[in-house]
Amino acid sequence: MTYCVGIKLNAGLVFLSDSRTNAGVDNISTYRKMIIYEKPGDRFMVLLSAGNLSISQSVREILQIEQLKETPESAPVTIWNATSMFDACRVLGQAVRHVYERDAQSLKRAGVEFNVNLIFGGQIAGEGMRLFQVYSAGNFIEATPETPYFQIGEYKYGKPVLDRVLTPDTGLDEAAKCALVSMDSTMKSNLSVGPPLDMVVYEANRFETDKVVCIDMQNPYFRMLHSGWGQKLREVFDSLDDPVWDDAHTETPLLTAAGARNKPLRKISTPEEKLI
Amino acid sequence: MTYCVGIKLNAGLVFLSDSRTNAGVDNISTYRKMIIYEKPGDRFMVLLSAGNLSISQSVREILQIEQLKETPESAPVTIWNATSMFDACRVLGQAVRHVYERDAQSLKRAGVEFNVNLIFGGQIAGEGMRLFQVYSAGNFIEATPETPYFQIGEYKYGKPVLDRVLTPDTGLDEAAKCALVSMDSTMKSNLSVGPPLDMVVYEANRFETDKVVCIDMQNPYFRMLHSGWGQKLREVFDSLDDPVWDDAHTETPLLTAAGARNKPLRKISTPEEKLI
Repeated sequence: MTYCVGIKLNAGLVFLSDSRTNAGVDNISTYRKMIIYEKPGDRFMVLLSAGNLSISQSVREILQIEQLKETPESAPVTIWNATSMFDACRVLGQAVRHVYERDAQSLKRAGVEFNVNLIFGGQIAGEGMRLFQVYSAGNFIEATPETPYFQIGEYKYGKPVLDRVLTPDTGLDEAAKCALVSMDSTMKSNLSVGPPLDMVVYEANRFETDKVVCIDMQNPYFRMLHSGWGQKLREVFDSLDDPVWDDAHTETPLLTAAGARNKPLRKISTPEEKLI
Repeated sequence: MTYCVGIKLNAGLVFLSDSRTNAGVDNISTYRKMIIYEKPGDRFMVLLSAGNLSISQSVREILQIEQLKETPESAPVTIWNATSMFDACRVLGQAVRHVYERDAQSLKRAGVEFNVNLIFGGQIAGEGMRLFQVYSAGNFIEATPETPYFQIGEYKYGKPVLDRVLTPDTGLDEAAKCALVSMDSTMKSNLSVGPPLDMVVYEANRFETDKVVCIDMQNPYFRMLHSGWGQKLREVFDSLDDPVWDDAHTETPLLTAAGARNKPLRKISTPEEKLI
């Protein structure tokens, strides 16, 4: 499987991806799932991919030469000359559709779903930063202040911490930490998500970045996060009161059968009793 | 959807279920998913169900009259006279298969999968407590000390806290707290899991219990857990250092591009560049 997350903040963008792919648990490999497209001073874009690896690799390959034309006479739009991230994302959507035209029928014959999910974000000179999620049909949605992040792949284990922490005002370093905690939770619960991790942090209006890092399990910061988060979660759990089954002699809130407002559960005590 | 968890400890058993069902987000209802079968002094059993509601209701209905016969001459085994939880679980598995025989073909014609998942645990006089998970085929597995719990339904959001806390030596009240935190995380992230909650705590070798509670969102203990867990998680997150991008003047572990042991990510900077 895969886990990738892209975050859009007022201060910039954060991208994080794992690099494990698998075709069954007995066939695990390492493939990087992040590509950076950078033309300093003009545009900075990052693409993260999940889903069928042959599809995502094909999309990445033809994205470099994909051209969008509104009419046969229009000047071709590419990711390198698009004047907005929206147009660049349309080029990406068209690349997905081209791969669909080439491969979908043969995949279907083989019983393989046409499945690819992409996160595409960045900034082109002349507009603000933008972040998109692109689906298998080549359609896409854009992140907004209410939901400033996208996840693809195994999203469930790592979602709660993103929901608790991220707002558009979150700082870049804090968001990077949040993405790494989210990744750590995912790797702990899903073996098909694994290291090394690729992370990029982009500061708004820079049109380039040097904050690009590949993180393996020896990385001291990631090791600190991994052990610190686990240990402190356990401390938090222990600090919460256990439930008390009667309501005498305690000031803590109570869990009492008597206090239940709803109809208590019916017990069945003979074979003849009916359920309802 | 549904979320149910059953836990087997040395000290006893804990069962927790939500009560939301849905046929699409525009059709949400409340159905209790827990049934207690109790014959004081002789047997105590709890059944939790997830999956297609018509199937699980049918299974529960016919479980009351289901009889297992090894040969036409054998005395019939029911959940009320089985001498082991293993045999009682075989009766349950047969009930699932009977519903399959009745309904599966018609469901398939309608494009509906035969999908039911059950947790069944308890104790019958003469043996220790046992906990099983039963699948749609009527087959089942039993909990062991290495994995002392089962989840059915929406299991992902609530799994990490179970993995961090539960061992066979965990106390009953602590395990009840753990199950409730697990349920709280699940309800926060999946709207199709919802209150009221049904919880049963069974002490080993009692063959009955009065610790049966229905918990709604006004329950003071659950409210304390919900707000306390969220707030303290955030404090833990804040207490962990943010990453530092250069390795000067700090004693905390560093996240540095220079420190990466793996090949750094390739940047693509012109349309002509190849990916590989």
